[in-house]
Amino acid sequence: MISRLNERIQATGAPIVVGLDPMLGFIPEQILGNAFAQYGETLEGAAEAVWQFNKGIVDAVYDLIPAVKPQIAMYEQFGIPGLAAFAKTVQYCRSKGLLVIGDIKRGDIGSTSAAYASGHLGKVQVGKNTFAPFDEDFATVNPYLGTDGVKPFIDVCRENGKGIFILVKTSNPSSGEFQDRIIDGKPLYELVGKMVDEWGADCMDGEYSEVGAVVGATYPEMGRVLRDIMPKACILVPGYGAQGGSGKDLIPFFRKDGLGAIVNSSRGIIAAWKQEKYASYGAEAYADASRAAVIAMREDIQSALTLS
Amino acid sequence: MISRLNERIQATGAPIVVGLDPMLGFIPEQILGNAFAQYGETLEGAAEAVWQFNKGIVDAVYDLIPAVKPQIAMYEQFGIPGLAAFAKTVQYCRSKGLLVIGDIKRGDIGSTSAAYASGHLGKVQVGKNTFAPFDEDFATVNPYLGTDGVKPFIDVCRENGKGIFILVKTSNPSSGEFQDRIIDGKPLYELVGKMVDEWGADCMDGEYSEVGAVVGATYPEMGRVLRDIMPKACILVPGYGAQGGSGKDLIPFFRKDGLGAIVNSSRGIIAAWKQEKYASYGAEAYADASRAAVIAMREDIQSALTLS
Repeated sequence: MISRLNERIQATGAPIVVGLDPMLGFIPEQILGNAFAQYGETLEGAAEAVWQFNKGIVDAVYDLIPAVKPQIAMYEQFGIPGLAAFAKTVQYCRSKGLLVIGDIKRGDIGSTSAAYASGHLGKVQVGKNTFAPFDEDFATVNPYLGTDGVKPFIDVCRENGKGIFILVKTSNPSSGEFQDRIIDGKPLYELVGKMVDEWGADCMDGEYSEVGAVVGATYPEMGRVLRDIMPKACILVPGYGAQGGSGKDLIPFFRKDGLGAIVNSSRGIIAAWKQEKYASYGAEAYADASRAAVIAMREDIQSALTLS
Repeated sequence: MISRLNERIQATGAPIVVGLDPMLGFIPEQILGNAFAQYGETLEGAAEAVWQFNKGIVDAVYDLIPAVKPQIAMYEQFGIPGLAAFAKTVQYCRSKGLLVIGDIKRGDIGSTSAAYASGHLGKVQVGKNTFAPFDEDFATVNPYLGTDGVKPFIDVCRENGKGIFILVKTSNPSSGEFQDRIIDGKPLYELVGKMVDEWGADCMDGEYSEVGAVVGATYPEMGRVLRDIMPKACILVPGYGAQGGSGKDLIPFFRKDGLGAIVNSSRGIIAAWKQEKYASYGAEAYADASRAAVIAMREDIQSALTLS
């Protein structure tokens, strides 16, 4: 799956993933009003609004980008109807030719991690039938439990041609509390990065491994070190835009061939219509504002990479 | 919520949580057959079987124990129907007076962690209405992202009188890969334990904090150290039974008053009917086998604590 992601990055010239992390506050009044008119101010109504909002954005940007990254928490907060909107969003994005990174940050042990992996990336058996319940192309995984937690995901990736991104150095301010602590002279995130490299060796897809890493745009110097430690890994880079990272901060995450990283922006794209810069689009054309924001982000990244 | 858990532990004499982690292989033929007859060999059929299996066990053991711990991965693997069975199980257990620990191991940052916390332990607002989508009493949380990831859960706990258990030292064989690494002369799990103690100070409920910890029964010596580092924390102890921990291994996790820990058994209880020891119950009486296994576990723990 990682080689397909690389092909799509090259075809679009955009190492960009749009984070579909809808909050009700991002959704224009006309969409909320329609959804609530149909389902009431209920979890079903919220889920319908989220789905319609996503669909508008996907329809406006799908030709520009290789992938989307729905953050499952934003759906799970609305219970079962919300999770149904997540599943519908995943399927719709795939039908538009987008690769889908399920930002699920799951991680457990043994049969439990295997259950998450099967449900999100693989298949489950029920009697004589098999089903692919969520069927994302990639998922994010938490490494705190060690190999026991990660291995079942890798097995499912190998069987199903899917990929994962393991949290190595997260973009948030307090990520250093544990991740930066020094072990044998090196920070924990380097140790995790080294394990990502080892885990990934058994699951190659061309020059890259199906086992990638998450490293925040807010920590470019650490990104540079991790880029070297994990030469086979594609790095999923959150923290661009709203969280403070900019185009020039991204250079260390890329390999010299312009591949090896994909940069996420969520709020900066999906809530673009609420920013002063794109306010002229108005609520009705919120998806056009998202399209303009994707184009601006592509230019920011391309010019940074060209100058590097 | 932690004081309610302690009351229920004292009332039942059983510091036991039954892990509702159903796999299809644990479910007797008569339940699978009925569910598949009604819904076919589908995700809906699997979810119905899981729910009927759980209901049988809960009806058989609810008077003996304070709490259950459904592992959401085992439901999530069956997609939306599976997650609906999770929600139904949570509500049914609460209606029987059981406290419910959602074993969700979520952990993300800022508004995303807040979304998980609201969806599982708190409330979400939709227009003028509020909903408590999953409404567990406790949830498990992954600490890898630091305070940014944990704080939103604690805020929701404080507002809603709920609790969390943070992964400190997990029960699996490879948990030491990262958790045991030495930082400033101490293993990472001690550092996480110290943070659990600090995080918990703002969220007390009587003598105990709403912020508890997960420490595996398979590591009793580490449990002893962590018991001292986290005096206010209730320790949720997985790894008893099927994973290898026994009654005497549990002593270090308890405080002198016999509180301060609650021990999980999943497979050892819910799949008791498949063990040689309880085989005479047969598939029809699988829930009675679970009841017998709970009583045996209670005796094992009580006698270990009495001897200590």
